[in-house]
Amino acid sequence: MKPMGALPPEFAQQDGPLNIAGRTADDWVMQAGDTPLFVYDMAIVAARIARFRTAMPAIDLHYAIKANPHGDLLTAIAPLVDGLDVASSGELAKALAVKPAASISFAGPGKRDDELTAAITAGATLNVESEGEAARALAIGDGTGVTPRMAVRVNPDIELRGSGMRMGGRASPFGVDAVRAAALVKAIVAAGADWRGFHIYAGSQALDPGAIIETQAATIALAARLAEEAGAAPPLVNLGGGFGVPYFAGDVALDIERVGAALAEALASRPPILAETRFAIELGRWLVAEAGVYLTRVIDIKQSQGETFIIVDGGLNHQLAASGNFGTVVRRNYPLAVAARMGRDAVDTLSVVGPLCTPLDRLGDKIALPPVEVGDLIAIFMAGAYGASASPSAFLGHPAAIEIVTAP
Amino acid sequence: MKPMGALPPEFAQQDGPLNIAGRTADDWVMQAGDTPLFVYDMAIVAARIARFRTAMPAIDLHYAIKANPHGDLLTAIAPLVDGLDVASSGELAKALAVKPAASISFAGPGKRDDELTAAITAGATLNVESEGEAARALAIGDGTGVTPRMAVRVNPDIELRGSGMRMGGRASPFGVDAVRAAALVKAIVAAGADWRGFHIYAGSQALDPGAIIETQAATIALAARLAEEAGAAPPLVNLGGGFGVPYFAGDVALDIERVGAALAEALASRPPILAETRFAIELGRWLVAEAGVYLTRVIDIKQSQGETFIIVDGGLNHQLAASGNFGTVVRRNYPLAVAARMGRDAVDTLSVVGPLCTPLDRLGDKIALPPVEVGDLIAIFMAGAYGASASPSAFLGHPAAIEIVTAP
Repeated sequence: MKPMGALPPEFAQQDGPLNIAGRTADDWVMQAGDTPLFVYDMAIVAARIARFRTAMPAIDLHYAIKANPHGDLLTAIAPLVDGLDVASSGELAKALAVKPAASISFAGPGKRDDELTAAITAGATLNVESEGEAARALAIGDGTGVTPRMAVRVNPDIELRGSGMRMGGRASPFGVDAVRAAALVKAIVAAGADWRGFHIYAGSQALDPGAIIETQAATIALAARLAEEAGAAPPLVNLGGGFGVPYFAGDVALDIERVGAALAEALASRPPILAETRFAIELGRWLVAEAGVYLTRVIDIKQSQGETFIIVDGGLNHQLAASGNFGTVVRRNYPLAVAARMGRDAVDTLSVVGPLCTPLDRLGDKIALPPVEVGDLIAIFMAGAYGASASPSAFLGHPAAIEIVTAP
Repeated sequence: MKPMGALPPEFAQQDGPLNIAGRTADDWVMQAGDTPLFVYDMAIVAARIARFRTAMPAIDLHYAIKANPHGDLLTAIAPLVDGLDVASSGELAKALAVKPAASISFAGPGKRDDELTAAITAGATLNVESEGEAARALAIGDGTGVTPRMAVRVNPDIELRGSGMRMGGRASPFGVDAVRAAALVKAIVAAGADWRGFHIYAGSQALDPGAIIETQAATIALAARLAEEAGAAPPLVNLGGGFGVPYFAGDVALDIERVGAALAEALASRPPILAETRFAIELGRWLVAEAGVYLTRVIDIKQSQGETFIIVDGGLNHQLAASGNFGTVVRRNYPLAVAARMGRDAVDTLSVVGPLCTPLDRLGDKIALPPVEVGDLIAIFMAGAYGASASPSAFLGHPAAIEIVTAP
């Protein structure tokens, strides 16, 4: 038997049929009309946002929509956050539909001219990633007669580590190296663009509050140093994100209250050049991952060489990360449950596999589950971030998953 | 510097601008109207098919469309092969558009009732994966009044290994264990279904001809043994595929002529119960991988901490496998080239990264390339299989890649 991650707190203590936002999994499937189905519980997202607001009342909250760009979810989240961070002109268009351009920022190391033009003419902020990109953006600003809003994305000398922090920096396609950032700010200001500040993103999916606290303090110090060098106070410093969620056995949820307290202290003693600066934290996964449940139906149960396989109608075509094929070296089990029998004792060791004709399509490897029958719904938790939109949905020609956002 | 794989033979000796099917990469991009772009050279596919026909004249050739289901490619391939193998009702519909149902077979461990119904009523062959699935198919046959065409997929006691072959078998969600296969055949025959034979697939992406030869011989022996046990001669034995292609430095292309000669010998001395049996080999990757070139444009070139990054407008959203994030434990470099400067000496060590805001989006890691300029096209080879359709195209909201199939 292999371990699996813990269920999110909203689901961990349930007994009987799985309840998502007040309704059973069966109810949601009936409403959707079919499986596989993602249900995103907007109340859980709202609770995470409220928790952030309490922990960090003076900090702007941005949603990084790459984590989950579903339209209904964006519509529900937009009024609850201060900004939306996008990574393509496709995401930009989605963000502009629900939020004013002035609260949208666009990061990404390979922005094409058509993407720069779309952002500049809309009035969104470009997180500029290189001197070359800045020159293109300024030229587009000249050509269109619109003053570009530009922040400088910095490749920091700091790296956020799950187990602390590695100082010293590394080569990166993201942002400009810190040693060149001030010169770029000066060039942007001299060109007459609207300089919006710094975007400094040191890492992601960290669960160690100490690592995040150190990184944030170092980021504030770096922003102050760069501002002094540039001779200009940044209107906004985006401190990045990096707040992780517990996917796997042994993971401990991040103590964001501790992070918030430390950040408030750090900001209370910040250098004078940052006195009027606003600070933002950009979160994707932490806001939405735990709100999502992927429901897939058991098609077949089979024995092979003494092992039992539960074969379900959804797999890595919708949930690539849960199959261990996206950004992970060692495959580990996401939390899974039999939707009809929450809280029941495990009776067997089973592997849950998707319908794809490839051994990669394994959603649960030798996990302990309560009794399972053909027709049961299997729930895969932690499915709200980097699920449907980050999976190869066309692979093997199955239909896309259905996605439902619950009323907030 | 890190090594990269060798270019396919059709491209390896080119000098000057990259030529695909008689036209330059620039021409293809002009025709497509934009990048990123996949070009599939149908003449290369046809050459692979011709090579197979010469090497294995007595063997049926099936195309596993999961490797590349692009409609124009299917239309071009269908008349050149004896069968199409599909893995979902979506693929089934595509196959039925270009090939008679009697030459289509449908494998997949989690076929839903609606998929079984579609296949049975169309007259395609089901590669039945379990006793439970067989029972459902027979019931659907009864309900619809159509006699199901059913082959039995066997989980063999054989495993195809890149470095030889491991005997002994392993637990698998695919097919029924060999010890239960004959009983399932008897049940299918007794129920009045049209039993089509066996589907026995032991592994994939093997480059060692010795391993494939041993596996094929063992598969023939297994089919004969199961037929004797079942008391029925299989009309067709699908020997699986497993023919690999050389992606990475050090890979040596498969000697299929050696495989073909050995297979002919094995069949010449096959057990009498298989005397009237046809044999098929099911290939996806081997037929189409080398025919595909992914063309993506350089958006920016940047220096960071002493390294040079070439930032292109396409990435893992179209070419997940090339980024090392699909089914590989250690990331290795696919073959890449600067399309305008084929055959030129490498002058620099560069990393080629896509536009996505994630460090996973790396297409070439510290590779040696000729001079590169912003606006150049970068070609990524071996892009004809498991590329566009096996990548998370919606991730980060960039447009889908354009795909063009050249005239045969």
